Order: sequence, then C-alpha cells, then structure tokens
Amino acid sequence: MTSVKTGRRICIVVNSRANYGRIKSVLHAVNDHDALELQLVVGASALLTRFGDVATIMQRDGFQPNATVYSIVEGETPTTMAKSVGIGILELATQFENLRPDIVLTVADRFETIATAIAASYMNIPVAHTQGGEVTGSIDESVRHAVTKLSHIHFPATSRAKENLIRMGEDPRSIFLTGCPAMDVIADLDLGLPAGLFSRDRGVGPEIDPAKPYLVVLQHPVTTEYGRGFDQINETIQAIMALGVQAVWLWPNVDAGSDDVSKGLRVFREKVRPGFIHFYRNFEVDDYARLIANCRCLVGNSSSALREGAFLGVPAVNIGSRQQGREHGENVIHVPHDAKRIEDAIRTQLDRGRFEPSHMFGDGTAGKRIADILVDVDVSIQKSLAYRDPPGASDW
Amino acid sequence: MTSVKTGRRICIVVNSRANYGRIKSVLHAVNDHDALELQLVVGASALLTRFGDVATIMQRDGFQPNATVYSIVEGETPTTMAKSVGIGILELATQFENLRPDIVLTVADRFETIATAIAASYMNIPVAHTQGGEVTGSIDESVRHAVTKLSHIHFPATSRAKENLIRMGEDPRSIFLTGCPAMDVIADLDLGLPAGLFSRDRGVGPEIDPAKPYLVVLQHPVTTEYGRGFDQINETIQAIMALGVQAVWLWPNVDAGSDDVSKGLRVFREKVRPGFIHFYRNFEVDDYARLIANCRCLVGNSSSALREGAFLGVPAVNIGSRQQGREHGENVIHVPHDAKRIEDAIRTQLDRGRFEPSHMFGDGTAGKRIADILVDVDVSIQKSLAYRDPPGASDW
Amino acid sequence: MTSVKTGRRICIVVNSRANYGRIKSVLHAVNDHDALELQLVVGASALLTRFGDVATIMQRDGFQPNATVYSIVEGETPTTMAKSVGIGILELATQFENLRPDIVLTVADRFETIATAIAASYMNIPVAHTQGGEVTGSIDESVRHAVTKLSHIHFPATSRAKENLIRMGEDPRSIFLTGCPAMDVIADLDLGLPAGLFSRDRGVGPEIDPAKPYLVVLQHPVTTEYGRGFDQINETIQAIMALGVQAVWLWPNVDAGSDDVSKGLRVFREKVRPGFIHFYRNFEVDDYARLIANCRCLVGNSSSALREGAFLGVPAVNIGSRQQGREHGENVIHVPHDAKRIEDAIRTQLDRGRFEPSHMFGDGTAGKRIADILVDVDVSIQKSLAYRDPPGASDW
Amino acid sequence: MTSVKTGRRICIVVNSRANYGRIKSVLHAVNDHDALELQLVVGASALLTRFGDVATIMQRDGFQPNATVYSIVEGETPTTMAKSVGIGILELATQFENLRPDIVLTVADRFETIATAIAASYMNIPVAHTQGGEVTGSIDESVRHAVTKLSHIHFPATSRAKENLIRMGEDPRSIFLTGCPAMDVIADLDLGLPAGLFSRDRGVGPEIDPAKPYLVVLQHPVTTEYGRGFDQINETIQAIMALGVQAVWLWPNVDAGSDDVSKGLRVFREKVRPGFIHFYRNFEVDDYARLIANCRCLVGNSSSALREGAFLGVPAVNIGSRQQGREHGENVIHVPHDAKRIEDAIRTQLDRGRFEPSHMFGDGTAGKRIADILVDVDVSIQKSLAYRDPPGASDW
Repeated sequence: MTSVKTGRRICIVVNSRANYGRIKSVLHAVNDHDALELQLVVGASALLTRFGDVATIMQRDGFQPNATVYSIVEGETPTTMAKSVGIGILELATQFENLRPDIVLTVADRFETIATAIAASYMNIPVAHTQGGEVTGSIDESVRHAVTKLSHIHFPATSRAKENLIRMGEDPRSIFLTGCPAMDVIADLDLGLPAGLFSRDRGVGPEIDPAKPYLVVLQHPVTTEYGRGFDQINETIQAIMALGVQAVWLWPNVDAGSDDVSKGLRVFREKVRPGFIHFYRNFEVDDYARLIANCRCLVGNSSSALREGAFLGVPAVNIGSRQQGREHGENVIHVPHDAKRIEDAIRTQLDRGRFEPSHMFGDGTAGKRIADILVDVDVSIQKSLAYRDPPGASDW
Repeated sequence: MTSVKTGRRICIVVNSRANYGRIKSVLHAVNDHDALELQLVVGASALLTRFGDVATIMQRDGFQPNATVYSIVEGETPTTMAKSVGIGILELATQFENLRPDIVLTVADRFETIATAIAASYMNIPVAHTQGGEVTGSIDESVRHAVTKLSHIHFPATSRAKENLIRMGEDPRSIFLTGCPAMDVIADLDLGLPAGLFSRDRGVGPEIDPAKPYLVVLQHPVTTEYGRGFDQINETIQAIMALGVQAVWLWPNVDAGSDDVSKGLRVFREKVRPGFIHFYRNFEVDDYARLIANCRCLVGNSSSALREGAFLGVPAVNIGSRQQGREHGENVIHVPHDAKRIEDAIRTQLDRGRFEPSHMFGDGTAGKRIADILVDVDVSIQKSLAYRDPPGASDW
Repeated sequence: MTSVKTGRRICIVVNSRANYGRIKSVLHAVNDHDALELQLVVGASALLTRFGDVATIMQRDGFQPNATVYSIVEGETPTTMAKSVGIGILELATQFENLRPDIVLTVADRFETIATAIAASYMNIPVAHTQGGEVTGSIDESVRHAVTKLSHIHFPATSRAKENLIRMGEDPRSIFLTGCPAMDVIADLDLGLPAGLFSRDRGVGPEIDPAKPYLVVLQHPVTTEYGRGFDQINETIQAIMALGVQAVWLWPNVDAGSDDVSKGLRVFREKVRPGFIHFYRNFEVDDYARLIANCRCLVGNSSSALREGAFLGVPAVNIGSRQQGREHGENVIHVPHDAKRIEDAIRTQLDRGRFEPSHMFGDGTAGKRIADILVDVDVSIQKSLAYRDPPGASDW
Repeated sequence: MTSVKTGRRICIVVNSRANYGRIKSVLHAVNDHDALELQLVVGASALLTRFGDVATIMQRDGFQPNATVYSIVEGETPTTMAKSVGIGILELATQFENLRPDIVLTVADRFETIATAIAASYMNIPVAHTQGGEVTGSIDESVRHAVTKLSHIHFPATSRAKENLIRMGEDPRSIFLTGCPAMDVIADLDLGLPAGLFSRDRGVGPEIDPAKPYLVVLQHPVTTEYGRGFDQINETIQAIMALGVQAVWLWPNVDAGSDDVSKGLRVFREKVRPGFIHFYRNFEVDDYARLIANCRCLVGNSSSALREGAFLGVPAVNIGSRQQGREHGENVIHVPHDAKRIEDAIRTQLDRGRFEPSHMFGDGTAGKRIADILVDVDVSIQKSLAYRDPPGASDW
C-alpha cells in the first residue's frame, strides 16, 4: 500500500554524477524515513549522456524523479557556466513552487548548487547544505561560501569546516557535524572489484587488467585558470606516459574549460593511441568507489582523492590549485602542473603503498544522521550574522 | 574630442531607483576619471514606469547606458523574485561577454545585485561590492553576505561593516573603508526644497504644503514575512491617520509582497481619500535627499532612514524587522508593527526635532575614493577563505 | 472513486482571462470524458492579481492545475512581449517533458499561444489549435497563422476560417469545424444579471445601476501601433464623456502598450472623476457573458464584440485596426480612433437596439465536439504543405 | 576612413555553419552597400567548437559580430531544442532592443530562425526571410512556414517556392524571387580542390586521396523521427562499407537526435576503424562547396545535395524523409533507410557521373539583389492574410 507521508517534504536536487555520489545515502535515508517525504529533482549534467546519464542510473537505483530539468547552456565557457546558473534558478523556482517542499537540500559547491540555494532562499524555503565550510581553489571556493550564506541548516563534513562556518557568522545552532554522505557509500560497500568492470563494452582504449596495478586519473579544468587547461593536461599526460603503468582515465566534468582538457586528451589519444590507457566517461557511484579503492594511485585534481581517498587510505597525487587549501589526510602529495614533479610524486606513492584510513571526512553514518535531523530541526527563514546581538532589537 | 580611454573598463549595473542613488557619485567619478572607462548596464526595475523610469532620469543626468536589460518576472511573489535573479544572470552574462569589463561593480543586497555578482564571478571578472558587511533583516541579509563571498573588492560603508567582512574571512587587503556613495549626493547638494516639488502634476492626493511640517512614509514588504504585508501597512496607516500631520507617502519597491502593501494603500486611499496624504511613485535622487532632509520624521522601514537619516540628522521611526540589526545613529526609534507604538514614536520624534549629523556611513567622498582605488587595485580572481594559510600550499 | 484514466492525456495551457473563457467548455468536456485525461498548466497573466487572478477563479471552478508557471517579463513593451514568449517556451518544455501529454491544446493567437505551440511541436507532441484561420489586425494576425503552421489539429470557429486554413495549405483531414468554445459558455448560461454584480466591493468609481442602460468599454493596445495607445484611448474617453451614459470600463490586457492605455485611463480618472463610469479589473467568465449580454452597446476593440457579440446580438462599436478584417455579423459598426465617429456610432447603436443572434462563431456545442475528436483523431507529427503530392515520394 | 552609414540597419543573425553558407553573400553585399549598415549577431551552434567554431571563421572572413549569444541548451533532445528556441528569443530581444535594427534578416528553417523571427516580429521590426515556401520533412517543414507567417519580406529561392508563398496568403508585393544566396558562393568560386584540404591536421581517420574518387556523407537526425537515428545511420554505414569507396564523413548538426547519429558513428569508428573513411567536424563554407563539387556522389539527407547539388550537377543519393517533398533536379535519387537500396543508388550515381548544372535554386546573384531590395523596400508591420479584402475596412 502506498500512503502519502505526512512529514516534512525534503526536496533534493541532483545535478551531476559528483552530486549523486555525495548525496546518495541521504536520498536513501530520507526515502526510507517514515516522517519524511523525498522530492527528487534531477537536472543539469545529470541528464546528459556524455556525463554518464546519471538520471538513468538513479532510476535503476530506485529513485524516480519528481521532475527533470535540462539547464546546461552548451559551450563550457565561463559565460555558459554563468548562464546555466541563470536557467537553473529560473526553472527550479517553478519546480519548487509546484512541489512546495518544506526544506531544500543542496550539495557542495557547483553552479547548480548555488542555483538551488538562490531559488529556495528567495522563496522562503529553508536551505540545507552539505560540505559547507571547506576550503579549496577554483570558483567553487567562492560559491561554496556564498551558498553557506544563503543556507539555514549546515551539514559540514569535518570539524575544521564546522569551525569555519561558525567563524563566518553562521548560527552554531544551525550547524550539525555529520560527516560527508559520500563516506557512507564506501563504508557500506563490498569494495572488491566486480568481475568484468573493465571488460564491459564501454569507453575506448585497450582493456585494463584488474589483476595488475593500475592508476586512476581524473583532472578537471580549473575555472579560475580558464584557457590553461590544454597545457595543464599535457603535463599530466607526459607523466603518465613516462610511467607506463596502466591507467583508467576519466573525462572531465562540464565546467568552463572542460573542452580544453578534453581536446588535450583527444589529440593525445588519436595521435599516440597509448597501449595502456583506457578512457571512460563515467562509473556508477559504487563502482567508482571500488575503482579507486583498488587503484595504486589516484592522480589529478578531483576532490575524491582528498575526501574518499582519506577514508580509503588510497595514495593520491593532487595536481595544481583546484584543491588548494582543502583539508586532507596523509595520503595526498600536492604538486604543480609539471610533468616531472607529477611523475616523481606518483612513483613515491607507488613505492609507499596504502595509508591508514581516516574518518576525518565522516564515519559512514552521515545520511541517516542528516535525515534524522531534518525531521524536526528548528529553522528560521530570517538569517542574521551571528557575531553580536542585533543592535536595536532590544528597543522593542 | 572623443577619445577612447585606455584604462580599466568598469562596468556598473544599475537596477533600481535605490541602486542609482547609492552609486550615482561613483558613476560620475568613474566617468570623469582619465584612467577609467565607464560601462553602464541599466536593467530590472530601473526600466519600469511604475518605479519611476530611472533609466530616463539617468539619461537626463548624462549617463547613456551601453545596454538595457528587462529582467523582472511579473508577480511580486517569492517565486518571481527568484526567477528574476535567473533571468538577470542569463542576460548579464551575455552583456559581460560582449562588453568585456575589467571589473564589475555591484551595489548592496538586492536580487539584481546577486545576479550581477554571480554572472561576473563565474566569468572570472573581478566583482567590486558596496555596502558589504552590514546587518539587516529580510532576504537582503542572506544575499548581502552571499555577494560578499562572491566579491573580490569590498567598499564597506562603516567601520563595523569592515570589521564584519574581516571576520567573515575576506582578505583585509581587499577591503577599503570608503563610506557609502549615497552620502556624497547629500554632501554636495543644496538641500533647500525646490519650488514646486509638490505642486508638479504627479502622484495622487491633495497638495502638500512645503511651508508646513510634513512626514515622509516609505514602507517596503519584508520578503521573509511574505503574506503579512497587508496587515503591516494597515498599522502604519492607522498611526498616520491618528496623527493627522500631512504626509508624503511613497509606493513600495518591487520585492515579493509589494502587491500586499500596495493593495493596503489602494484600498485605504479609495475608501478614505485622506485629506492630508499625497502618494508619490518616485522622486529623483537629489529630490529624495531634499525631501527627507526637510521632513519632520521619516517613517517606515527604508534603509534611508538609518543611512541618509544619520548623515542628515533626520528623526526617524523604523518599523518592524526589515532593518533589524542594522547599524544606526541616535536619530532612529525602532518599533514593531503596532499602530499605537508607531504613533507614539512619531510624536516623540516630532517633539524632539533634528539630531546632530553623523558621518558613520561616510563623509561624502566615497565616489571619488572608490574610483581612485579601482584604477589600480590589485585583484586576484581566485579567492580563499582568509582564516589561515591554506594547508598544502607549502608543499610546492 | 478516483481512477487514473487510461486514455489520451490532453494538456491545455491557460495563460490569460481571455484564454480561459475561450476554452472553459473544453476543459469541462475533457475532464468529464472517460477516455481523456486533462492536464492543466496555468501561467502568464492568468496568475497575476492585476489581471483578475484567473488561476484562483479556475480552482473555484474545479480545475486544479498540474503546474503553474510565471512567465511574464514586466514592462508591457514590444521587447518584454518577445521575452515573455521566450520564457514561456523554456518552461513549458520542462512541463511537457514531465507531464508527457499525448496532445497539447493551445488557444487563439496570443504570445503564450505561440510559446505553447513551439514547445510542443519541437517536442513531437501534436498541437491542437482553436481559432485558426481567422483574420484580424495587430501582431495576433501574424502569430495566429504561424501557430496554424505549427499545429497538427485545427478547430476553427467559422466556415470561412476553415476555408482559410485549407487555402494556407493545411491538410483538410486535420481540420474540424467545431465552432468556438466561447459560445458554449453563453449557450448554457442564465444570462440574467446576477444581483449585486455591480455593488460588490470591487473596482473604483460610482456604482453602476443595473436597472438603467449601460455601456461596456474594453479597449486594448494595438501592438503594431505601439506608442499611440495614449492618444487612442483619449478619443474613446471623449466619446464616452460626450454621451454621458453610465459605463462599465475594463482595464486592458498585458500586451505591449497596455501601460499607455492604462495611463490614459488613470490620468482621466484622477482628473475628471467621472460620475457615471466604473472601472473594473476583471469579471469571471460567466459574469462577463452576462455583463455584455445586458449592455446596450459594447465599445472598444475586444474580439468579444465580434464573436460573443454575434452570438448574443449585442450592438457593438469596434474602434481602430485591432479587429481589422475579422469576420463579424450585423451587430458591429467599425470606426477609426476619432471621438466624434465613436460617439456617433454608439448613438446609432443605442437607437438601433439588439440584433438577431447569429451562430456564425458556433452553436454552443464546441467543447464536447472537440473532446470527442481528441479521443481518437489520427495525427501525424510530420506535417507537409498540402498543395501537392510531395515530389520524390513516389520514387521509393 | 570609417564613416557611420546613414542608411537602414540590417541585422542578420547567424546561428550555425549551415546558416553562414546560406547567407554569406548577403553579409558581404550588405556590408559593402553604401546605403546599408550591417549588424551581425552570432549565436547558438555557430559559437560551439564541436560545430566548427563558425564565429571564428566569420571573423577571419572579415565579419566582426556586434554581439555573440550562447543559446543552446545541451542535450540534443526534443526538449532541449524547444528550450534553445526560448533562450534565443529571450536574448535576441535584448540584442534587438539595444541594436535597434530597421530590418532583421533570418535564414531558412531552423530553431534559431524562428527564435529570430518571433523576437523581431513582436518588437515591430520587419522580418526578412530566405528559403520560405520550400517543402521538406522534419520539424523544419512546420517551422519554415511558421516563419513565413511572421515575416514581412520574402526572398524565396525558387519559383515554385514563390508560388507557395502566394498560395499561403502572403502579399505578392512582399515576395522577391532572388534565388538562394548559397549559390552565389559557388558561382564566384574557383572550385578546384585546394592542395592540402585533406591532409591538414584535422578530423580522424586515414587520409583521403584527392586524386581518387571519393564520396561525401552527411546525415542529420530527423527530429520528427526522434529515437530512430541510431538504426538509420547504421543502414548508411553498411552501404558505405559495402561500396569500399573512400569517403569524407561529416558529423551531424545540433538537432534533437544528433547524439544517436553520433553514437552510431562513434561505435562504428571505434570497432571497425574503417580504412577508407575520414571523419570531419566542419569545412569552411568555400571548402565545403569545393568538397562536394569534386565528389562522385553526395550521400545522406543534407539539403545541400538538392540545392547546391543542383547548381553543381553533383550526383546525390538522398536518404529518408528529411528532404521529403523538397524541390530538386535530376541529380538526386531518393531512397529509404535501407542499406541495400542506398548502396544500389550510390552505384547507379557512380556509373552515371555528373549532371547538367541547374539554376533552379538561383543563378549566383542573390546576395546583391537582396541587399538592393533591402535598401528601400516598402514594409508594413501589420500583416494581413492576402486572400481577400478585409471585411469591414470599407466601413471607414
């Protein structure tokens, strides 16, 4: 029997493959909670084939969207990123008006994240936010903190992030240190490499041998360094070629400059046809966790190297400024965009082997804790910089 | 002789009558500066007749826009405010792409402000922001701080605002305490009431006698209290009716809930036809300054009561939560939405008379100082929360 | 018992008060039909208070919208009309994607109409259209025929309109002469003036006495004559003032130039305070039918004078080019924007009295007939200009 | 010396590589005309790298855009095509408001075309249109005729198209049979294959030998048959593989279903790595003319096979319904999506050799003639279906 739930309606907007992995355990926890009703909106790059058609994967995982919203303006330039925010807001406002959620939950720091936060906050719908208070490079740094300022409930992943939120003037009563839901996925998972993960008919390049050591490479453009992506990826390519270790290489996400990175990869692939690199568009959330859990070194500038990497103790080489300032564990070596430095760092990590797992980004229980808090957390739509009692208030 | 300037292109987006008064002296200073080129975009409610057609006034003041952009979705609901942000971003991105400004300057805390900040920051154009760090009520409170987080150069109006910006994690080297450009307009002005200000064929209601004491009433909706505007304005109406002092009453701005406030005023006007209240849509920036400079009490919830009011020493009664927590001088009495409390407070102010002027919001030199700083201020597109040295950076 | 219907999903988009009256009987017929499922989207000016909040009236009439979509860009200029089409398409596409209708029905010739037709036809959803093939002035003339070219099923109101559709190259098998659903509302109605229609607390001006003769005036801007609305309305005002007969005056719709017409009315009302004119924002569909059924003359440029007017035999004076070329009965006198000509024509009609009713625009059964056709009409998404067999087809 | 022209401002919107080739000679003619001022807006897929970055090519050809406008919503589904129309209208309206053209010229029948026509016609700017009155398949068929209904000046390419426009009710005085500007490009060109056309570092696959016979294949998705593109392209692939003649294969355009076609090509390329097929993204307008002028057979469903093909006398095999009903010369064989039929038809054409050139689509003077007409053509914004004198008009 299907019964309409009478509790709070929690609307979660999933806009990319990264979003999904970072919020999947919350989706499950809200969906399963008697006192909560899940409203799911799927949009932006989560609908696009070239980013792995996350919407279809989600449906296979049992999540039927209440609405789908195409909102990416094609071009992958700084201009089109901005425009995609605009369309996102315009259309999410209509969705929120019709879904009438009690709380909207938005994930991390991408352009779809701020679109969600702006639409909801102007509509007097409380905004809950994960991953606030963290520090990185790229435009994500500005956007993450702006989303914090628009949010009414904070679910930071680390205690340092929580501390930053308080310092930024957020009300401590609105901040809940839950850890990152992305860790939940890993914690609950059989991390063994599934048979046939690499042999399936997908991606291009020679087949990866799961019995041998392999690298995972994932390098996104840095939006604030737009125009330098082609040179940057070439340094990484050189390093990987020099190492000659088989590598799983993932295409970059939809950010401005993605085209430069992709072009670098395409030119390289067509010219060199490297015999030990396989290019993939996307892995499902669980498979991605298994993929990196079993690799010898995670290379590039994905936050997963620092976040999931810490939880798993996977050696990682982080390149360039994209993760600059992000909290991380012992498993990461930072290097600039320099082929030799990258190569050396990977060699160091290959020699070093696995690290002790760390729970600095969460202990695998975030999803359930977040759902429980959402049931009855007290929220005020009217925010106020929490540094001092507002002057004048005592006049009444 | 027209010569194309070779200095920085400063793009300023003016989106409402309030925007214009708050940035007019900067427009002049940038326009007059040899090392700066002004790019002017006029949009949103600044183009609308019912908000005083600010675009036309600006042209009369000598400012030819590079582009005009209609971006308000009609409805004055929380939904349409959100959607107007979306359209603003979508279209401003195109304007910025074509104008290629070196710096974009955005004003205060309205929905057009954050649209400007988002478009520019995603496009790697440094954002300069006035009025950051102040504290108020309404959605403006959230938005103002979010804009701060997207901005690269800050021009706070007060030293407490500057202090707040630093506490929020902005780089102190990017913060310049210039005062508010709105004060410049007043400082430079002959504040005598122009002959015929009230007798011109405009607005509705009996003519105001400039020789007698008058009140100015301006009460906007509070977006975070959407749905309560009708009741709220009726408390104010009752208080003014009880006082019987002639009053200049201005229509509210375009925010969500504006319709409720306007409806309250229309119903009242049609039913009562009050013999001592005149309703106006808009005054030009200079005339508004003169209007409040010469009134006996400024009533409502406009920030001008606290900001320009302080500079002028005008007695003011601030109603409700819209300005909650905003820094202010001795000239303001705060009251809730309660007819009796409003009436009493106005009586107190009428008895009290004028206050000592205060320069807490600026000394009248902000415009020129801002222009001078924009000429060669050092800006980095990549922001970083300034609480600590980013971990990892020293690894390189 | 609520059961989900298994027949075709018919999505009808209602965007204005005029839309609603013109499609209401179809909404009922589709809703009541066992083999059809009604999907209702309400948007544009149908959501706006100043145009009578049609959405609320519809809900009172028993129609719950599947979605509401704000899409009017404020300004009432040619630019904002165009932009409103753009937003309409952008958002209706998302609605259609999520509602998955089998057929989309769009009404007449307004900017929301073409937005609906474009969204649906690009999405391979068959478009059904009412009022195709008619001839008028204004931009509506271009838009109506463009919508015809995008539509797959035509429900013209008159036999001449049907003939025009065939001449324009539409497939005769896709054309169904059903009459206009607006006539259904009238045919089924007790046309007596409801007690208290004029005395209710609404509109401004002295109360209309239903026992005495009254005029109804409704004059919209002509978009293709943008900028001339103020002068045009003043001619009509002069004529009505000269007549001195009590008049029910309705505000114009949201088209470009509406502001000019409204300004003319406002200035007139404030200055003259005419003792025999009452200004109304809106009447519900049924009340509007009763209103004009009982008036002595319908004045202005509303199509209702020609369409509903014919059915009712109401004397009408049609002013200017807005209805130029529209088919009409004996009840209409056409005059240009000239006060004397308008006054003389109204006098002629007042002397003349009622006309014989005509079924030229339908016999009051359109709604049911349209619903019946929609159940199983054969539609091909691929249109082809029907003048000749396509060359080349026989090659296969 | 640059002098501002005082004649009519002609705004031409170029939105795709196809657009550009079809209007290039008009751009030159307007630009060179003393009595005309060219305003150029470049948008949609003309800005995208994966469609050949037409904007950059145009700049190399000497055309500086007044504005660039990204407007494609990514996804290549029916939904995103519709949404791209919406954004196009929204933003073009702003561009037209700021550019204030006297006439807007729009090309053919794509989604950007109707966006241009809607924005301009609602803004009371006369719309000039090329390629009206032609008959094809796909959504283009509906859109082309809808654009005709929104246009004030028609430049049909053929006499049958002109006849169709008149039958559809367009005013004969507004129709000018000029031929298609695409023929001008060919007529003026040295059609010899440029040295190195195939050897340049571009595209993927083995190098084409210009000394040997080659095919050109270009097959777009058919939007009204969305979902069938993958199967359809595979029939063509089989036919080409069976023939074994070297082939230049171009990627499809941005229409809905493009992804299916591309996927078919990608899968085939990765699996088979055909030794005699080279895949290209784009050729410049002139090079494309040379490319097809020298091929043995043009295969697929591009209109260039029927239009430019006729002018050049190039043998062509047209597949499927996309060009269904389009006027064409002796050079075309029509076949359905059937590998055997395609193969046979290509063999027939290879045996047959070149055809007599035909001027049915123009004689190479269209651009200059169009520019001359635009100088002083009389236009009325108010259109009227031209079948009969509008009734009622004689009443005045």
